[in-house]
Amino acid sequence: MVETNSAEGVTRTLASYVLEAKFEAIPADIKAKAITAMVNWIGCAVGGSGHETLDVAWAALGPFAGAPQASILGRDIKTDILTAAFLNGTTSHVDDFDDTHLKTAIHPSGPVLGAILALAEHRLVTGPDFLHAMILGIETECRIGNAIHPEHYDVGWHITGTAGVFGSAAAVGRLLGLSVQEMCFAFGIAATQASGLRDVFGTMCKPFHVGHAAKNGLSAALLAKSGFTSSEGIIEAPRGFANVLSTKQDFAKITEGLGDSFELATNSYKPFPCGVVIHPVLDGCLQLKNVHDFKSEEIKSVELKVHRLVLELTGNKEPTTDLEARFSIFHSAAVALERGRAGIAEYTNETVNDPDVVALRSRVRASIEPGIEQDQIDITITLEDGRVLNTFIEHAIGSKDNPMSDSDIDTKTKVQCAPILGDAGVEHMIATCRDTLNLASAAAIAESATP
Amino acid sequence: MVETNSAEGVTRTLASYVLEAKFEAIPADIKAKAITAMVNWIGCAVGGSGHETLDVAWAALGPFAGAPQASILGRDIKTDILTAAFLNGTTSHVDDFDDTHLKTAIHPSGPVLGAILALAEHRLVTGPDFLHAMILGIETECRIGNAIHPEHYDVGWHITGTAGVFGSAAAVGRLLGLSVQEMCFAFGIAATQASGLRDVFGTMCKPFHVGHAAKNGLSAALLAKSGFTSSEGIIEAPRGFANVLSTKQDFAKITEGLGDSFELATNSYKPFPCGVVIHPVLDGCLQLKNVHDFKSEEIKSVELKVHRLVLELTGNKEPTTDLEARFSIFHSAAVALERGRAGIAEYTNETVNDPDVVALRSRVRASIEPGIEQDQIDITITLEDGRVLNTFIEHAIGSKDNPMSDSDIDTKTKVQCAPILGDAGVEHMIATCRDTLNLASAAAIAESATP
Repeated sequence: MVETNSAEGVTRTLASYVLEAKFEAIPADIKAKAITAMVNWIGCAVGGSGHETLDVAWAALGPFAGAPQASILGRDIKTDILTAAFLNGTTSHVDDFDDTHLKTAIHPSGPVLGAILALAEHRLVTGPDFLHAMILGIETECRIGNAIHPEHYDVGWHITGTAGVFGSAAAVGRLLGLSVQEMCFAFGIAATQASGLRDVFGTMCKPFHVGHAAKNGLSAALLAKSGFTSSEGIIEAPRGFANVLSTKQDFAKITEGLGDSFELATNSYKPFPCGVVIHPVLDGCLQLKNVHDFKSEEIKSVELKVHRLVLELTGNKEPTTDLEARFSIFHSAAVALERGRAGIAEYTNETVNDPDVVALRSRVRASIEPGIEQDQIDITITLEDGRVLNTFIEHAIGSKDNPMSDSDIDTKTKVQCAPILGDAGVEHMIATCRDTLNLASAAAIAESATP
Repeated sequence: MVETNSAEGVTRTLASYVLEAKFEAIPADIKAKAITAMVNWIGCAVGGSGHETLDVAWAALGPFAGAPQASILGRDIKTDILTAAFLNGTTSHVDDFDDTHLKTAIHPSGPVLGAILALAEHRLVTGPDFLHAMILGIETECRIGNAIHPEHYDVGWHITGTAGVFGSAAAVGRLLGLSVQEMCFAFGIAATQASGLRDVFGTMCKPFHVGHAAKNGLSAALLAKSGFTSSEGIIEAPRGFANVLSTKQDFAKITEGLGDSFELATNSYKPFPCGVVIHPVLDGCLQLKNVHDFKSEEIKSVELKVHRLVLELTGNKEPTTDLEARFSIFHSAAVALERGRAGIAEYTNETVNDPDVVALRSRVRASIEPGIEQDQIDITITLEDGRVLNTFIEHAIGSKDNPMSDSDIDTKTKVQCAPILGDAGVEHMIATCRDTLNLASAAAIAESATP
């Protein structure tokens, strides 16, 4: 017999909260953080729209898509809302540059905004309702993540896919005005589609998970609204989501303090387009490169002491594609030391195969050091002339204790989007997001993110 | 650290086999069994098309569907191939009347035929190629199921959803002529969508899993053909499918004897529209009712001794809907003894709430008896006049050792489909399936299954 851990009414409690929460009760700083997350996420979706992943997906699935109801961000194409949710969710994560809920490694905005941005172009949603649904969707997926992390992630699930589909269903269910039973069913339909394996990291399937969660949460809520039935307690049931997909089930993390604390408070933003555990090495290497005057050919060796998860997730020593490079601490250290930068251009197919970067990469070594946290790193560079340079990063830039400012995020967004939207276009897009509370229709947000 | 079980090259070996297998090498009896499975499955899809599940799903998702490329079986509607695969897969399992791979409880035809029937209406597929793809798809999903069953099922996965998506991807990948690497990627894209929780049994989400697997395997192969990347060893990787979704990984079950043995050889067909573990009680109760002359009000008590899985899966004592009744051994015993039949009419919303059936149901008790197998049951009926009737079912009708004949299946199919296709229509549909090897285009099969 399989042992399971259960708790009565978790799904129903969460569903009731999502449906009955009052926008007035959301603290002002959480509303502000939601808008920051929106700016950052739309920048990533527009910025990612130039990636071949979108072309490949659209070529495969476009022939089967429906009426032009919603925008593909960054492109001059519309498609049906389910396909738009999928494509926008996918491109938003293709550069691995979107937001991170550090407690769980969930990328929270993608599944939620992918779904409700598309919905808001098809059905009237006011700006305040849109922002509220976004906040509730993110709260839902992050709380479910908290209940099962880290065991769920460690075994091999990509939590953004598995928990994300609940966030999408919650946000859409709120906007569709589901009953409590329908919302429970929507969670059931969502959960029974929850998927995403970590083995695909470094391929187009990692961003795919975000789009998949956005689309499937959207369809789950639409199906429930139409009368599709499911189980009423999918989160806590013995053969429901938490028991089947995790060995840890801390159900109190889902229900305690609903409406009092908000997971958006701890959301973080990336200064570099790669896995978040790579950020300390980039921060440290860029600082050493700026402070000391050395050329990459002068570097004899680079020694990195890291948290165990860093090597588990980013231990690829010989990446050959941009997507693999985002999960290689070796490429990241080398490219930062070689070029003194770590932006989109440092994670292209061309750069990852640049002979100078590859040569330096072979001189980078990494080892697990007990006591070093995920946002820390110890870096030692030995130069050919005998100099030894060392730095310890206490909290990497972009981490909880060293966050990017709104101004930093605006700058990041402008760099990502200007080539696609133009300078004035990006300014307009950022202004539209920041004006969400005054928008009569949130469709203006997606419209502002197309050329 | 998570312990994992790995094996080199399983995914690639399976992919190569699916792509390189020769139709001439398939034994004639396996081809015949595939055609039998096709007749049975299409009968279930057409028969299930009258269920409200289809109306609800189409109302929810139809507004976002694409061009009319493929048929909704049993209806006079066409839609895009992905939506058709989803809807036909779903309706085929709504009556829980489709085929069963008894070793794993996979319903093998649905994910595969749901996908390739739709594809064959959009792109020319000859009858022999169609049948071959079907056989290879079923082989793929059942072998993957064998590698992880029963641990995977016991923990709460609906294996038809999780393994089924590989079957769909394999069959479509074969028809699209993928390269070996593309087929590995297609398996990766499929696996990272593998889902389906047993907690939703008894609701519309159970048949949903079949449609979901059909559609997602189809889209996985289409994406891979277009250049979408994934991992190359998703089945065996440490954080791939078998290690993340199961505590058992018997990889040899996937690769050993490929091309020599075929899982279709042990496929089985249901005489009753409900969970397969309920079949022994129906078989036994109908035999007792036929042999002895008693009315249901004369029954004092009914005692059932069953395998543990029977109560785990079908222990619902007070079902209120048709979908719940299909997973209630109590309803099943009562309705069989009350009506002397156990067909579609005995599993409707009306019948499950019939006061006579409900009254008798309350006098049915069931207990787990060690030594009783899943296809067995011990039934004791005590009558008010003191008579005690007992029977032991050694192998229920429809089980491996007591299979339905092709003629039985034709009769079953006619009963299911005549109300929708008319008598001549069903005859034509069955004849078209049986003529698959001579069809220039397998589109004729789907066309024969519409009014």
